[in-house]
Amino acid sequence: MLTIGKYTFQSRLFLGTGKFSSLDVQREAVEASGAEVLTFAVRRLNISDPNQPNFLENLDLSKYTLLPNTAGATTAEEAVRIARLARASKLCDMIKVEIIADPKTLLPDPVATLEATKILVEEGFTVLPYTNDDPVIAKKLEEAGAHAIMPGGSPIGTGLGLLNPYNLSWIIEQSQVPVIVDAGIGSPADVVQAMELGVDGVLLNTAVAGAEDPVKMARAMRLAVEAGRLGFEAGRIPKKRYASASSPMEGMVTA
Amino acid sequence: MLTIGKYTFQSRLFLGTGKFSSLDVQREAVEASGAEVLTFAVRRLNISDPNQPNFLENLDLSKYTLLPNTAGATTAEEAVRIARLARASKLCDMIKVEIIADPKTLLPDPVATLEATKILVEEGFTVLPYTNDDPVIAKKLEEAGAHAIMPGGSPIGTGLGLLNPYNLSWIIEQSQVPVIVDAGIGSPADVVQAMELGVDGVLLNTAVAGAEDPVKMARAMRLAVEAGRLGFEAGRIPKKRYASASSPMEGMVTA
Amino acid sequence: MLTIGKYTFQSRLFLGTGKFSSLDVQREAVEASGAEVLTFAVRRLNISDPNQPNFLENLDLSKYTLLPNTAGATTAEEAVRIARLARASKLCDMIKVEIIADPKTLLPDPVATLEATKILVEEGFTVLPYTNDDPVIAKKLEEAGAHAIMPGGSPIGTGLGLLNPYNLSWIIEQSQVPVIVDAGIGSPADVVQAMELGVDGVLLNTAVAGAEDPVKMARAMRLAVEAGRLGFEAGRIPKKRYASASSPMEGMVTA
Amino acid sequence: MLTIGKYTFQSRLFLGTGKFSSLDVQREAVEASGAEVLTFAVRRLNISDPNQPNFLENLDLSKYTLLPNTAGATTAEEAVRIARLARASKLCDMIKVEIIADPKTLLPDPVATLEATKILVEEGFTVLPYTNDDPVIAKKLEEAGAHAIMPGGSPIGTGLGLLNPYNLSWIIEQSQVPVIVDAGIGSPADVVQAMELGVDGVLLNTAVAGAEDPVKMARAMRLAVEAGRLGFEAGRIPKKRYASASSPMEGMVTA
Repeated sequence: MLTIGKYTFQSRLFLGTGKFSSLDVQREAVEASGAEVLTFAVRRLNISDPNQPNFLENLDLSKYTLLPNTAGATTAEEAVRIARLARASKLCDMIKVEIIADPKTLLPDPVATLEATKILVEEGFTVLPYTNDDPVIAKKLEEAGAHAIMPGGSPIGTGLGLLNPYNLSWIIEQSQVPVIVDAGIGSPADVVQAMELGVDGVLLNTAVAGAEDPVKMARAMRLAVEAGRLGFEAGRIPKKRYASASSPMEGMVTA
Repeated sequence: MLTIGKYTFQSRLFLGTGKFSSLDVQREAVEASGAEVLTFAVRRLNISDPNQPNFLENLDLSKYTLLPNTAGATTAEEAVRIARLARASKLCDMIKVEIIADPKTLLPDPVATLEATKILVEEGFTVLPYTNDDPVIAKKLEEAGAHAIMPGGSPIGTGLGLLNPYNLSWIIEQSQVPVIVDAGIGSPADVVQAMELGVDGVLLNTAVAGAEDPVKMARAMRLAVEAGRLGFEAGRIPKKRYASASSPMEGMVTA
Repeated sequence: MLTIGKYTFQSRLFLGTGKFSSLDVQREAVEASGAEVLTFAVRRLNISDPNQPNFLENLDLSKYTLLPNTAGATTAEEAVRIARLARASKLCDMIKVEIIADPKTLLPDPVATLEATKILVEEGFTVLPYTNDDPVIAKKLEEAGAHAIMPGGSPIGTGLGLLNPYNLSWIIEQSQVPVIVDAGIGSPADVVQAMELGVDGVLLNTAVAGAEDPVKMARAMRLAVEAGRLGFEAGRIPKKRYASASSPMEGMVTA
Repeated sequence: MLTIGKYTFQSRLFLGTGKFSSLDVQREAVEASGAEVLTFAVRRLNISDPNQPNFLENLDLSKYTLLPNTAGATTAEEAVRIARLARASKLCDMIKVEIIADPKTLLPDPVATLEATKILVEEGFTVLPYTNDDPVIAKKLEEAGAHAIMPGGSPIGTGLGLLNPYNLSWIIEQSQVPVIVDAGIGSPADVVQAMELGVDGVLLNTAVAGAEDPVKMARAMRLAVEAGRLGFEAGRIPKKRYASASSPMEGMVTA
């Protein structure tokens, strides 16, 4: 069970709702993924009628926790403004802070993210900042009151996986709040690697929506999250240069 | 569905029966893994009463296909002799050829393996040779009539995973028979990586039996095999240095 | 030739002066390395007689450009104060900003580093900030007037090499000022990898001082910097899955 | 100093003479590389006038040890025949056994290589077999009398570098004869990695001849071989997750 602020979830897979080829594929993929938390960009909301945003119309929103994000923001001020808009729509008081610094790499601005996180925590939001994988920034975000840390594995949409597993492992070791890998995942193998490192969850979008068969990939990702979590909990064997050098395993069944 | 010679299986996970801390753990792990094929060393068989080998006594053998292996053999002649013994016991006509060349690394002898494979194919066995990851040796084994190719990911029991994914990918590309990764897997992440490369199955033993919680790890491995296979079939997104450089995704739902 | 602010250097290897087993080994290693720039912690200076700091007494300081660092600082204010002290000693107006955020990982504080960089640039220093490998922070440092960017390859003293070559490559692509990898290098292979990526130089300390034979390692590192730079300039062959699939190389000498 | 059979060399870089854009570039690259051993395909020799093969005519052959190879052979018999032809030309009694099994990957045939090696050793040649990176095959080649083992880092001409450093390290550990990495190297970084692992030398061709500036790359490779060898001898620092956890370095100069 995953607890973020006042929320608890059975599933450790968060799914983005964008980039699907059709609303039907979107709905089927969401279902196949087992996700309980769905993210979307507030700027895509139909503000005049926030209860019926067209790109979510195929989903039974009562079944999911919505995690609006501030995509489109390039400053702390913009992110805060978007977060307030999201709350005003009464969809959710969770907010994923996403402030992009560079239109080419789509990497987040850690300084502005830190600023926005401080303000939004003070305003009572449940704040999940999308950040780089620097353990020092992660610590500052946690000290600012973030309810989860969302480091990128690699830049958004690249599918490059976890570029720096060491940084992720240091973030995991130091964090008292959940750690959710938020960008760059390309395939189930990346998910399992992250889960075995000990992250608390993953947020996917392009890896599912952009797959040749998004619904099948959503199912693969669901199983990958479970496999990785179980593998983490089950305690893997150590790596050795020579298995033959191991101490004899007495009393064991050998075949 | 996986077809090897005249056999077909739903599960793509083959499990070794050795190295478990107790027969109860062994049985529970076997069940949790979903394996249909179980391997064991013929030399552990009680030859005088082959229908009741003590280290398999806790398993309902009618539910599984048994894949005896020739562990202990260091020459082709020994492997052939062991294979004939296994067939005489009427347990199965499948045989995993395992001829260890070096007691330190436990790496297989590809030349002797090729020799034994030729003889056993002629004698009508369904032959699954455990081999190195050299595509040239794999091709020779297939030309000799092997019913599946079983390259090691890394040396037996090391948990080092797939040391050379390129070699595995070349074997997969050239092979008309199934390719089953047979040694060195350490965790579910390794399994998913192998399955996404396109291998037809994996054979596990130490990674499950040696885990802190073998039964939970068996379940993790079962899910990992499924996640990896689905991921392979679903067609992952390409890796890119910059996602922003992608061609515009027209007609897509964006959020 | 490497230009940083108003300084130019032939050598692309910067060497730290600490952690050597003796002052004689230090001097020999410095000479073997070919370094023109030597770094040291200001806090180790004998402030009352800054022209004769004891740990540098074996070196002919007239032959080197000194790059004092602010090691020991944990805030921007402390770093600025140390930098002013260094300048007051008239040793150099270059300063390496080093503000450690975490005593365990020794990772730098990017926010405080950015602050200190802004102040020191305004005060006329030639500023080389040691930072994480985040391209966004690197960009902010450059915009703040930093004369070079010094991202860590991995945490100080770990010898883990370049944990995230992608981040380094993005920093190199975007930077108008030199990029010097500053921490984590363990061996000549790491140096060559960095130079082939296109970094302008490397700063070494533990990898040389902590080697079994520091003087020989210093010579190895000097050659590695040159090999890597030449390799970068010479334009390596592309990586291919199959060389045989290359277009025919007409008019070439083949043997 | 590198000793192979009755030969000794100062340089640990062996260079292939093929694939250069002109004989002038070839000559300059050979000189810049510092190589003492040059390889070439016997089938390119002008047999009727073996002292003046046209593709080597620009080189002062008295300065080099020639290492003819059996490229073009696909069986042991062909390789043996080519080796005898080479010896008949009185160019050298060294022979590099190269028997390609697959025109697509250009991977060597280990079984035929083993056969040819046995025969040529008996005939008094100094035999350097090009082989896969399997430690078991390497051992068999050494037992057959090979004077050096030449495992490929990756397939010929691919520039993929060392696909399996573990296998190379096991070969190095077990071998009493020199180990020379023979294929797949793409850049100086690959060379240094190999030398730090402890290989005795490298054989390059495409990585130099195919570079944008082959002469500069030859110089880079020369320095890389030296840097890597010195680094290997100098004893690198261990890798650590946290340098701060190291035992205090008493008596050391710290800066």
